[in-house]
Amino acid sequence: MSKNSSRPVGRHFLQIPGPTALPDRVLRAMDTPIIDHRGPDFAKLAKRCLDGIKTIFKTTNPVIIYTATGTGAWEAALVNTLSPGDRVLMVETGQFATLWKVMAEKLGLRPEFIKTDWRIGADPAVIEDHLRKDTNKEIKAVCVLHNETSTGCLSPIPEIRKAIDAAGHPALLFVDTISSLASTDYRHDEWGVDVTVGGAQKGLMLPPGMSFNAISDKALAASKSSRLPKSFWSWEDMLTMNKVGFFPYTPATQMLQGLSVSIDMLHEEGLDNVFARHDRLAEATRRAVKAWGLETICRDPKYYSPTLTATLLPEGHNADAFRALALETFNISYGSSFGAFAGRYFRIGHLGDINDAMLLGALSATEMTLALAGVPHKKGGVQAAMDYLVSAHSSAAKQAAE
Amino acid sequence: MSKNSSRPVGRHFLQIPGPTALPDRVLRAMDTPIIDHRGPDFAKLAKRCLDGIKTIFKTTNPVIIYTATGTGAWEAALVNTLSPGDRVLMVETGQFATLWKVMAEKLGLRPEFIKTDWRIGADPAVIEDHLRKDTNKEIKAVCVLHNETSTGCLSPIPEIRKAIDAAGHPALLFVDTISSLASTDYRHDEWGVDVTVGGAQKGLMLPPGMSFNAISDKALAASKSSRLPKSFWSWEDMLTMNKVGFFPYTPATQMLQGLSVSIDMLHEEGLDNVFARHDRLAEATRRAVKAWGLETICRDPKYYSPTLTATLLPEGHNADAFRALALETFNISYGSSFGAFAGRYFRIGHLGDINDAMLLGALSATEMTLALAGVPHKKGGVQAAMDYLVSAHSSAAKQAAE
Amino acid sequence: MSKNSSRPVGRHFLQIPGPTALPDRVLRAMDTPIIDHRGPDFAKLAKRCLDGIKTIFKTTNPVIIYTATGTGAWEAALVNTLSPGDRVLMVETGQFATLWKVMAEKLGLRPEFIKTDWRIGADPAVIEDHLRKDTNKEIKAVCVLHNETSTGCLSPIPEIRKAIDAAGHPALLFVDTISSLASTDYRHDEWGVDVTVGGAQKGLMLPPGMSFNAISDKALAASKSSRLPKSFWSWEDMLTMNKVGFFPYTPATQMLQGLSVSIDMLHEEGLDNVFARHDRLAEATRRAVKAWGLETICRDPKYYSPTLTATLLPEGHNADAFRALALETFNISYGSSFGAFAGRYFRIGHLGDINDAMLLGALSATEMTLALAGVPHKKGGVQAAMDYLVSAHSSAAKQAAE
Amino acid sequence: MSKNSSRPVGRHFLQIPGPTALPDRVLRAMDTPIIDHRGPDFAKLAKRCLDGIKTIFKTTNPVIIYTATGTGAWEAALVNTLSPGDRVLMVETGQFATLWKVMAEKLGLRPEFIKTDWRIGADPAVIEDHLRKDTNKEIKAVCVLHNETSTGCLSPIPEIRKAIDAAGHPALLFVDTISSLASTDYRHDEWGVDVTVGGAQKGLMLPPGMSFNAISDKALAASKSSRLPKSFWSWEDMLTMNKVGFFPYTPATQMLQGLSVSIDMLHEEGLDNVFARHDRLAEATRRAVKAWGLETICRDPKYYSPTLTATLLPEGHNADAFRALALETFNISYGSSFGAFAGRYFRIGHLGDINDAMLLGALSATEMTLALAGVPHKKGGVQAAMDYLVSAHSSAAKQAAE
Repeated sequence: MSKNSSRPVGRHFLQIPGPTALPDRVLRAMDTPIIDHRGPDFAKLAKRCLDGIKTIFKTTNPVIIYTATGTGAWEAALVNTLSPGDRVLMVETGQFATLWKVMAEKLGLRPEFIKTDWRIGADPAVIEDHLRKDTNKEIKAVCVLHNETSTGCLSPIPEIRKAIDAAGHPALLFVDTISSLASTDYRHDEWGVDVTVGGAQKGLMLPPGMSFNAISDKALAASKSSRLPKSFWSWEDMLTMNKVGFFPYTPATQMLQGLSVSIDMLHEEGLDNVFARHDRLAEATRRAVKAWGLETICRDPKYYSPTLTATLLPEGHNADAFRALALETFNISYGSSFGAFAGRYFRIGHLGDINDAMLLGALSATEMTLALAGVPHKKGGVQAAMDYLVSAHSSAAKQAAE
Repeated sequence: MSKNSSRPVGRHFLQIPGPTALPDRVLRAMDTPIIDHRGPDFAKLAKRCLDGIKTIFKTTNPVIIYTATGTGAWEAALVNTLSPGDRVLMVETGQFATLWKVMAEKLGLRPEFIKTDWRIGADPAVIEDHLRKDTNKEIKAVCVLHNETSTGCLSPIPEIRKAIDAAGHPALLFVDTISSLASTDYRHDEWGVDVTVGGAQKGLMLPPGMSFNAISDKALAASKSSRLPKSFWSWEDMLTMNKVGFFPYTPATQMLQGLSVSIDMLHEEGLDNVFARHDRLAEATRRAVKAWGLETICRDPKYYSPTLTATLLPEGHNADAFRALALETFNISYGSSFGAFAGRYFRIGHLGDINDAMLLGALSATEMTLALAGVPHKKGGVQAAMDYLVSAHSSAAKQAAE
Repeated sequence: MSKNSSRPVGRHFLQIPGPTALPDRVLRAMDTPIIDHRGPDFAKLAKRCLDGIKTIFKTTNPVIIYTATGTGAWEAALVNTLSPGDRVLMVETGQFATLWKVMAEKLGLRPEFIKTDWRIGADPAVIEDHLRKDTNKEIKAVCVLHNETSTGCLSPIPEIRKAIDAAGHPALLFVDTISSLASTDYRHDEWGVDVTVGGAQKGLMLPPGMSFNAISDKALAASKSSRLPKSFWSWEDMLTMNKVGFFPYTPATQMLQGLSVSIDMLHEEGLDNVFARHDRLAEATRRAVKAWGLETICRDPKYYSPTLTATLLPEGHNADAFRALALETFNISYGSSFGAFAGRYFRIGHLGDINDAMLLGALSATEMTLALAGVPHKKGGVQAAMDYLVSAHSSAAKQAAE
Repeated sequence: MSKNSSRPVGRHFLQIPGPTALPDRVLRAMDTPIIDHRGPDFAKLAKRCLDGIKTIFKTTNPVIIYTATGTGAWEAALVNTLSPGDRVLMVETGQFATLWKVMAEKLGLRPEFIKTDWRIGADPAVIEDHLRKDTNKEIKAVCVLHNETSTGCLSPIPEIRKAIDAAGHPALLFVDTISSLASTDYRHDEWGVDVTVGGAQKGLMLPPGMSFNAISDKALAASKSSRLPKSFWSWEDMLTMNKVGFFPYTPATQMLQGLSVSIDMLHEEGLDNVFARHDRLAEATRRAVKAWGLETICRDPKYYSPTLTATLLPEGHNADAFRALALETFNISYGSSFGAFAGRYFRIGHLGDINDAMLLGALSATEMTLALAGVPHKKGGVQAAMDYLVSAHSSAAKQAAE
């Protein structure tokens, strides 16, 4: 865009790791006259959403739908199950894990925080070790982020479940899937998670303003004796009213209109296809980063995130200035950096309703901004991404033909 | 609509007392690509909203914007200012006052509940009397609804302020304006309110999913010593981040897009014109009800609500069946009834982006449904409403001409 | 609306006899990314439209879809079938019949114009008489408006067909259904019409910008020898390309998106229900006019229009001033007056996606404006309309129960 | 997209050379309740459009706005100015020039058709030569396409004007700017064009369904003696009604809502910035094509089109199969091929509301499809495009800094 223009031209490339670009179909579904939230049409809409969201979390238990962003659903997980002074085990995978831990403190819990260098996910062995030391079984819950949005590291939830079991520990397992749900495989029931926290604005392709608690029977049982005060977040009234298709207080009708459509869209594509697409685009992005000679924050391939890639700039190059230049020149937004790495990396989101050509447009803008910003790098990132994608599509076509 | 049609024809008449019908301009403002909530465009949007919302509450203090429905803002008012076991004075004006009281109990407060027959608002004299008896000044807050949405009774906030002062009581004053804000005059600062709770989905003409706390310096001071646990609802981080145009966690971007426009629309019409319009339509509605020979729930004109009119059906006539017949025949929704009156009345909402002809369409549907349902009534309600509106417009035209 | 407000409040009552208020569903269907008009998705869309529109005209022959307003489809009917100097018989039912006749002259045809006082439709007996006098069978086409939009008079097409046949005359029959199609029964094939001209912006509930020619085999045969020059309007290329789902030049993709949905909506309601609804609302409107003591332009009940009611004001009262006052005070638009009656009447449109309550809102605004404008009238028009609608719904309910 | 998915994922890349992708702002402006086309709000809207469109054609004369696609505006140019049997000079630059010539024949004109190999634009010297031979000055009009959409060749209008003048010939000059207007510089008045034909669906970023005639005084004078029959296309009534802000028949209200916004958007960006952007993206595209080792249809750089690049595939490779594979794999559409080249090339549109990253996404999809389709080519097209764009932005930044 020229300097003397007041209009950013064309479509914005929203490459933050959520909120993700809203599909037109979702936006239009929400652009509809509001309906009576106590009437028969609403009851049908609510049922579609309450049933449908279970298929996304892969649970047969109820999922609570909150009119609040993901932070609210974090709070809900804690206040519904725990009591003042309870010990909880958390893993400092990055900024969002830290925020959840600060929240736990504010709510009167006693979090224990396993440190990392912010460049890996949660290590099941370390969790197991920590729990084994809690011989009195005082730790009430283990809280981990499936995908740490601030760094792009994915943690192995099934293995963490096994670690807890191996330690013979009764702690509840709480998992934040805000930036992974509906983008990579997740199985609330099969993986033995007690409360899964989810949000609308990432893989679900909705605006922010809705979040979720998927709950196990064990979590539900814990809620009966929990003594943290709760009213807005209380599961109890929700579960009662949801049974007949309503909510205890005015729900976000338009968000439900959107949710109903986004669930349809995910199933039309097929969840496995959704996950494969995210894997493919993530790998293409990492190949571009590698070809540029840059480093990802995630330093261990086993934790690579399918939804975002945090990319370090070389020493002496400010990532915020880089982001500002990209926004001004190419109408693209990236995620910012946090903590000890503040100003040193930018995050490329590649999740939600995104396809190959959209990603390559974004990677092209990135490669060109590296050049314009004078960041030392090698050309060929986009080429590497294209080469990978050609091979991936070629294999897929062969498989389909067989 | 004919029985063998699967399509409700034409525009739905959403006469529930909120959420109100969404103006196309608001819907279209929300039907826009999502923007980076940490980027420069968002900062401008947030500033427009944070500044603009003050003009609606008539305060120069900050207003907190929550991504949650009004129930959440109720909770925020309590947890930010009070401590476990605190006594609070509430008035049972109806269903919503009762829900707020139940919430206070759940949060560990000790509400004292002034009874009414649900057919009047909060009486300042009774409040004053109650406070005078609290000689140890143990009551920490007085909580009232400006407009009780379940009954259509408006309480006189300035007089309640005077009553508290007359009693020489230091209690904070919390006011719920969910179904009155932006529909009738409200002055947070001038009236000496400490926390005003507001919502998006009524006079602000937005979807549900956003709520507000307007706060006084005294409330802010109280928040420093409050001991109820809080994190999502905490004012502190909000106030800090809002100063630079951002939010501590992902805000509801699309709701802010809508809010920015709805504030513009209110000022384009002029707040005083907005209030006069609501008064005019409310009076027309009451004249219709009276002409039909029916009774309003609100039994004292000094509490008449400008935003809704709850209408009793004669003994032996079920209001829910009446509502269902109206919905099926005339594509119109009314609010339901509560408590001891469950099934006995229906509520006609006349708030938000509504004009004379829309109201008369609704009142016509009501009069026709009375006939079709066999409810004993006199014809002429619509005629009475028209007669009043003609006289009101005639007077207004004369005044404008002078 | 108050004088010092810059915003018209609430929903506009668009009571012009078309374009009609657009249903949200149609608007949203058109608010969609444009697709390749040579691609596979377009071919599916075009097929849905080309097949669907036949069910509206009730024909098994192809219907030509023009990207042009109804005036264009008038021209298409003439240039595809006639030759310079051809005689055509037209009936001066009002302003639109006059415009069509002027068009015929401009195109080099020789129209013969049967006069009326603009207060009735086309009289089959007069047409028959005229044709009988054309002993050399030189008249090539009879052109009539099914519904004359300027006056609200409906002409009996089946009887006109019979009249032509009774006269033993070979003239083609051209019918303009612009303001009647999809609002009242119309049968292109069964009634023996040769070219039916239709438009999008009335009963089809679409924006202006699309029009139609339904054609008989006889008309198609006539097109082979027609000598008026034609290219854009030529049926020939259209018929060829439409067969494979495409258009000879870029079609109005978004209009087709809307058309596909509007056809669905009409069938969801059921065409017979659509027609019954229009009849009911038209009768209610005429009862209101009669109760006010005013006169309709249409002076003979056998020509009453189901889609609009033109209402005369008493001598000395200007209908344009009346319309301006209504617009300013009640946010309602009516159709204007024409010809010898210019300034003397206003037209109330009651067609498209309109229901009982919408109509009564409009009639209420009308009755109140009569009062505010000082037009001599009796009260009770809205009451009369309600009384009629109650009886109509009551009968319908009884029938359904039997 | 995976084979077993029923949903094309993400945003479609609409790289046909028009209709172009609709900006959300335009779509939302059109997604608005329809207004009375005889009311005061419409008059304001029409005035904004009628005034604004002049700034796009760079004329101070009126511009006629048709509710019809560009083909209609071609017809309008001819029928308003010419008479049966008139000779017109046209240049066979490609498919669309051919269609215009066929139209002229259908309308009874006698076109003379200067041949090309479809790989260059209109050559002024050849036109001059042809006109010089018309010693009796019988040729009434010279008709050329500014940009031939079927091949991507731009013709030099100012030089053609000079050629006509040099020949001392009085013929009118008609120019089709359908795929160039608002994308590259065009000056109706300064360049001495008599009728400029334009369309909505390309540089104006609107849906198809609206077209234009910009007219000179000389063209207007010619219309007084023109004898081709005309009614719908007649300039006369349009000019009269437009003066007071209305149209002689129902206009496409929603298209005007969009036009008003698209004109605003063009001026917000700045027309010169718009043109520079199109030049930049066109050059980037050609560099990609060259790097792939492929050939553009346009064989002479002086005719290179700023809005589309038609790319030949090597002998033995079918361009339609290539397009189908790209659509299926990468959700991208290209323009098809015509005439002698049918099946041999595809057209990449790079016009309208498009930015660098969008283009690079499209070129990436193209390069990957070349690989997947087994088309012989060299890698590096996207890289070449990026290299060029980096240098272009770098120069622009330096200039702005000076």
